[in-house]
Amino acid sequence: MKITFKPSGVEYELNESLNLLKIAELAGVLIDGSCAGKGTCGKCKVQILQGDTGALTEAEVAALTDWEKEEGYRLACCTKPNSDLVVFVPSIHGGSTRKKDMTYLPEDFKVEKTVVKTALHIKKASLEYQKSDVDRILEALQQKEENFAGVSLEFHKDLLQKVSNILEEQDGLITLVIRDGMVLDVEPGDTQSHCYGVAFDIGTTTVVGMLWDLNKGEIVEVAARTNPQSVFGSDVISRIHYSNASSDHIKEMQKKVCNCFRDIIAEFEARVNVLRSQIYELTVVGNTTMSHLFLGVNPASLARAPFAPVFCRSVNTFAEQLGIDVNPKANVHLLPNIAGHVGSDIVAVLLASRLKEKKGCNLAIDIGTNGEILFARDGKIVACSTAAGPAFEGAAIYQGMRAAAGAIERVTIEDGEVKLSVIDHEEPVGICGSGLIDAIAQMLDAGILDKKGRVVSAEAARKAGMSENLIERLYSDDEGGGFILYRRKEGENIVLTQKDVREVQLAKGAIFAGIKIMMCELGVKPEELDTVILAGAFGNYIKKESALRIGLFPKVGLENVISIGNAAGAGACMALLSDKERELAGRFAKETDHIELASHPDFQTEFLKAMYFMK
Amino acid sequence: MKITFKPSGVEYELNESLNLLKIAELAGVLIDGSCAGKGTCGKCKVQILQGDTGALTEAEVAALTDWEKEEGYRLACCTKPNSDLVVFVPSIHGGSTRKKDMTYLPEDFKVEKTVVKTALHIKKASLEYQKSDVDRILEALQQKEENFAGVSLEFHKDLLQKVSNILEEQDGLITLVIRDGMVLDVEPGDTQSHCYGVAFDIGTTTVVGMLWDLNKGEIVEVAARTNPQSVFGSDVISRIHYSNASSDHIKEMQKKVCNCFRDIIAEFEARVNVLRSQIYELTVVGNTTMSHLFLGVNPASLARAPFAPVFCRSVNTFAEQLGIDVNPKANVHLLPNIAGHVGSDIVAVLLASRLKEKKGCNLAIDIGTNGEILFARDGKIVACSTAAGPAFEGAAIYQGMRAAAGAIERVTIEDGEVKLSVIDHEEPVGICGSGLIDAIAQMLDAGILDKKGRVVSAEAARKAGMSENLIERLYSDDEGGGFILYRRKEGENIVLTQKDVREVQLAKGAIFAGIKIMMCELGVKPEELDTVILAGAFGNYIKKESALRIGLFPKVGLENVISIGNAAGAGACMALLSDKERELAGRFAKETDHIELASHPDFQTEFLKAMYFMK
Repeated sequence: MKITFKPSGVEYELNESLNLLKIAELAGVLIDGSCAGKGTCGKCKVQILQGDTGALTEAEVAALTDWEKEEGYRLACCTKPNSDLVVFVPSIHGGSTRKKDMTYLPEDFKVEKTVVKTALHIKKASLEYQKSDVDRILEALQQKEENFAGVSLEFHKDLLQKVSNILEEQDGLITLVIRDGMVLDVEPGDTQSHCYGVAFDIGTTTVVGMLWDLNKGEIVEVAARTNPQSVFGSDVISRIHYSNASSDHIKEMQKKVCNCFRDIIAEFEARVNVLRSQIYELTVVGNTTMSHLFLGVNPASLARAPFAPVFCRSVNTFAEQLGIDVNPKANVHLLPNIAGHVGSDIVAVLLASRLKEKKGCNLAIDIGTNGEILFARDGKIVACSTAAGPAFEGAAIYQGMRAAAGAIERVTIEDGEVKLSVIDHEEPVGICGSGLIDAIAQMLDAGILDKKGRVVSAEAARKAGMSENLIERLYSDDEGGGFILYRRKEGENIVLTQKDVREVQLAKGAIFAGIKIMMCELGVKPEELDTVILAGAFGNYIKKESALRIGLFPKVGLENVISIGNAAGAGACMALLSDKERELAGRFAKETDHIELASHPDFQTEFLKAMYFMK
Repeated sequence: MKITFKPSGVEYELNESLNLLKIAELAGVLIDGSCAGKGTCGKCKVQILQGDTGALTEAEVAALTDWEKEEGYRLACCTKPNSDLVVFVPSIHGGSTRKKDMTYLPEDFKVEKTVVKTALHIKKASLEYQKSDVDRILEALQQKEENFAGVSLEFHKDLLQKVSNILEEQDGLITLVIRDGMVLDVEPGDTQSHCYGVAFDIGTTTVVGMLWDLNKGEIVEVAARTNPQSVFGSDVISRIHYSNASSDHIKEMQKKVCNCFRDIIAEFEARVNVLRSQIYELTVVGNTTMSHLFLGVNPASLARAPFAPVFCRSVNTFAEQLGIDVNPKANVHLLPNIAGHVGSDIVAVLLASRLKEKKGCNLAIDIGTNGEILFARDGKIVACSTAAGPAFEGAAIYQGMRAAAGAIERVTIEDGEVKLSVIDHEEPVGICGSGLIDAIAQMLDAGILDKKGRVVSAEAARKAGMSENLIERLYSDDEGGGFILYRRKEGENIVLTQKDVREVQLAKGAIFAGIKIMMCELGVKPEELDTVILAGAFGNYIKKESALRIGLFPKVGLENVISIGNAAGAGACMALLSDKERELAGRFAKETDHIELASHPDFQTEFLKAMYFMK
C-alpha cells in the first residue's frame, strides 16, 4: 500500500498492518501525539482525503467532533489503512517563531567576535622558503592579523590533509576559520562573509532554531519543529519512562532531536543563502531531561526522588560527535542546568531577563510545557519547577489547542455578549492558553464562575440577575457542565467545561503556591514584589489583566508585569554570541538555589489555598 | 588450499593463486620484504616445511645460497603454493629492543605526574544533598585532593552515561583518571595502581613500543615489530609513491601502523599485568614521512622539491580518532618535525642527547634507515638528513642482514687470521652493520682495501707482502671480486664484495659530507669538535675505532665518541613522562636550522672527497 502525506507530499510504501502514527514516523512525517499512541489525547487528528480506513474506533468516536467525523478526520494512532491513502496532516507548528520574539536581547548585551574568519594569500614553498603548509599559513595569518602574532594555533588532525589539498588546488587563496586558538576549518577562496551559528531551544513540545550571522551579530532566520520525541508522549515523564526501557531507546531519542536540528537547518538552507558547513557554532538550551536526552544520557534519575541529574554543568562537544550535520568541528555548547527539574532553559531566562542584576524583589515565570519560576531578591535567586504548563498549551483542555489558526486567543464578556478573537480564521476550532485565561477571568467577572471555580447553575445565575443571553450558554451534564463560548451552525459547539476550569485551577494553583514558598524562603512580603516578568511565547500573548484576575501570580500594578518573549531562546542566542554570557550562565547555574516543591512541607497547604479565585 | 605459518601457527585458507608474501599479508603474518615484491631484495626468505611450491624462479636461484636451496628456502614474493603448505617464517625482529637501551634518559630528566588517578567514595544523592552525579564526584575530589580545589574539570560527553552507570552499580567507590583539567575516564572501584602510557618510535624499518608505569615513572616492557608498511618498500620514497597513488592507499598505510601499535600493545597485555584500557597516554616519534602516514596525511610533497611537509608542529588527538585500541580518550601526542627529511625522531634525539644544552661543538649522528645528523655549537643547532642508513642495516649489502642471530657483528684481522664474532649462532649466515664497518676497517689496515676502496688483486697483495692466508681469501669475478670472510663447509661462503664496499663508501661519504657542510655553516673548524654522539641501536654496537678508521665522522679522541642507544625512543619516553619536555621539543623543532643537502652547492664536491678512506 502507498500512503501519501499532504501537504508535504511524502510517500511511503508498506506491506504490514501499522497505524498511521507509526507509518508517519517511519516516513519521517511529524504528527502531534501526546499520549504515546494510546488514543486518549486526541491530538493526532489527520484528515483522510482519499482511501479506505474502516470504521471509527471507540476512542475516535469520543475524541472527534461531529463536524470532524463528517470531514473525514481520524486519530492517526487509531487508524490503519485498508488501501492506498492520501492523508492531510494539519500544521502542528505551535508557538511563536517570529523573529521579533527572538531578538528581545537585553540592552546592555554585547556581541563578541568568537568565531573569526580570515582570508589569506599563502606563498608557495620553495627551496628558499621551505616551510610546511601549516607553517606558511600561520605566517600569513600573523602577518595579516596583529592579534595572532605569537599565538600558536592548533590544527586538528582531520584538517591537515584538507589544508594540503586546498593549497594545491587554490593558487594560495584560502580562508581560515578560527575559534579559541583552534583552526576549525580551512576553506578554498575567500569565504569570510559566510559565518553562521545557530541557537537551539529544545522545548518539550517545540524545538526552535535561531540562525545568526556571526559577522554582523544579526539574526537571519528562525524555524521551529514539533519536538519529534513527542511521539513518545507529550510530557517529560513519559519520555523518561520510554528512554529508561533500553539503551536503544535513549539513542533513538537522541537521534530524533538531532534529526530535528537537521530539518531546521535544511529549512535555513532552503530559505536563505547559507551552507550547513558554514555553521560553526551551536548553543543548546532545554530542560534537564531534554539536556540529558540530547547527549544520549539516561534521564531515569529525574523521575524518582531525589531527582538528582547525571550532570548539571555545561558540556562542550563537536557537532560531528553528536551526528549534527553542520561543520563537523562546530563547537556545540549545552548550557548548564540548575537541578533535575530546572534546566538550562531557565538559566537562559536568567541571562535574558537580567533578573540577577535587578534591585529589589523580582519574579520571572516561564510557562512552557512545565512552569518554571525564578524569584530574585537583590541578586539572590531561587528557582523551582511546577508541572503547570500543559493546560496553558491546550493539553488536558477539552477543546484546547496551541496558538495556531482557528484558536480563540481573546475572550471578552460585556453587556451579556461574548466576543471572541480567533487566530487567522473566521470560525474557531478550539481555544489556546491566552484565550483560556481570558475566558476564565471574564467568566469570573460575569459571575459565571464562583471563587471556588464552580460553573453556576442557570437557576442561581437567574437569581443573581445574569442576562438571559449568558444563561442560555450554560449547559449541564454528568461532568459538571460548562459554558458555550461559540455556537457552530454545524458540528460541536466550542465550550469551556467544568473540568477545563479545574485544570486551570490546578495549574495556576501550583504556580502561585510555588511563588508563595519562594517568597517565604527569601523572606519577601507580598507588597515588596516589584516586577513580574513573563517569559515564553505564552507570556507574550497573555492578557495581563486576565492573568492577574485568575491569580496566576501575586498582585502587582499592571505596569509592573513585563513580557520578554522567548527568553530561553534569547538566552541561548546570547550564549551563542558571547563567551562572557557563557561564563555568566555557569555562575548563575551554580549560584541559584533550587527548591524541590514536591517534597516541600508547605506545598500542599499553599497549593490548596491557591486554587481559589480570590478577587 | 590451507597455508599454515610457523612459528605463529596462523592458518589461512585460499582459492586464488597468490604469492606467499601476499598470503602472509592477508593472514596478518609479517614477512620482511624491502623491494615491494619484485624479487630483487632477497629479504623475504621463508622455509617450506611441507607441501609443493614448484620450481625456483630465476630471482630465487640468484638470491638463495646453495645451503638455503637444499633446506627448502624460497623467496615468499616469488613462490605460489601448489598444495597445502606449512611455511616457516624466520624471526624478523631486528634492532635492539632490550629495556636497558631505552632507559638511557639524561641525568637531569624529571618525570612529571601528568595523568592523575584518584579513587573516591561518592555519597549517594538525597533530597538534602540533591546534587548531580558529576557535581558529587567533583565535590569528593576537591575534598580529597587539595590541588583540585576550585578547579573546574571537564567531563567528556561520552563519560556522562558511564559515570551514572558506575555510580549505580558500584556503591560509590570509583577512580577518576584526570589529565589537564579533563576527566579521561571513570572506572569502577579503586584502580589507582594501574596507570600506563606507551612511547612509540615508528622507524621506517622497525616500530618500537615502550610501556611505562606512569605512577612509578618506570619502564615496564619494550616490544618491537617490523614496520608493516615495509611490504610497500623498505625506504620512505617507495612508501610515498605507494601512498600517493590513491587516498585508499594512505588509509591503508595509516591502518597498518595503528595495527602494529595494536599488536605491540597486545604483546604487553600478554607479557605483563596491564589492560589496554588503562593506557592513557601515547607519544609518537618518527621521520616526517612516518609522521604524515601515521595521521593519514599524504606525504607526496616530501618526495619532490622543495620537500615542504604538510605540517611540522606537534599534533594532539584522541586514540579513538586514530583507531588505536587503548583508552579511547588517551591523548596521542605526535612530536614536532623539523623539516621534510628531519622528523620528530630527530627532535627526540635532541631531547635525549641534551645536545642543545652542551657547551662547545658537538655532533650527533642517528643511523637508522636514513642517517640524520645534528650539529650543535653552543646551543645553535643545524640538522640534515642523508640517505645513508640502509647499508648499515644490511640493505644493498650482498649478504647483509640486521643484527639478528647468525649475523657477523665483529671482525678482526690479525696476523693473517680472520676472527669473527657471530650473534647467537655458531655459523654465520650474513653480516650486520657493526660487522660491516669492522670488516672494512680491518681490511683497510691489512691492505686488502686501498684508500679508494678497491679490493687489491692477489698479485698486488703478494707484492706488498700480505700473508698467504689472507691472499687465499681474495677472489675475483666480473663485479670487481671481493674478500671471503667465512668459508662454509657446505653452501655459499660469506663474503664482502667490491660492490658492498662501494655501498659503504656511498653511505659514509654522504654522512661525512653532511657533517662537513654543517661545520662550514656554523664556522666550526675540524679541531674544534668536542664530542661525537652516536644514537640508534646501531651506534650502540658499532666499534668506535672502526667507525673512525673508515671515516664515518671527523677525527676525535676515542673517549669523546659516546653511544647513547635508541635516543629517538628515549626522547619519545621523555615526552611521554613530562609536558616540559614536550614544550622543549616544540622549541627545539622551531629553533633548529635545517640544511637540504641535495640542493646544497657544495654537497657533490664534499661527497666525492669523503668517499675515500683516509688514514
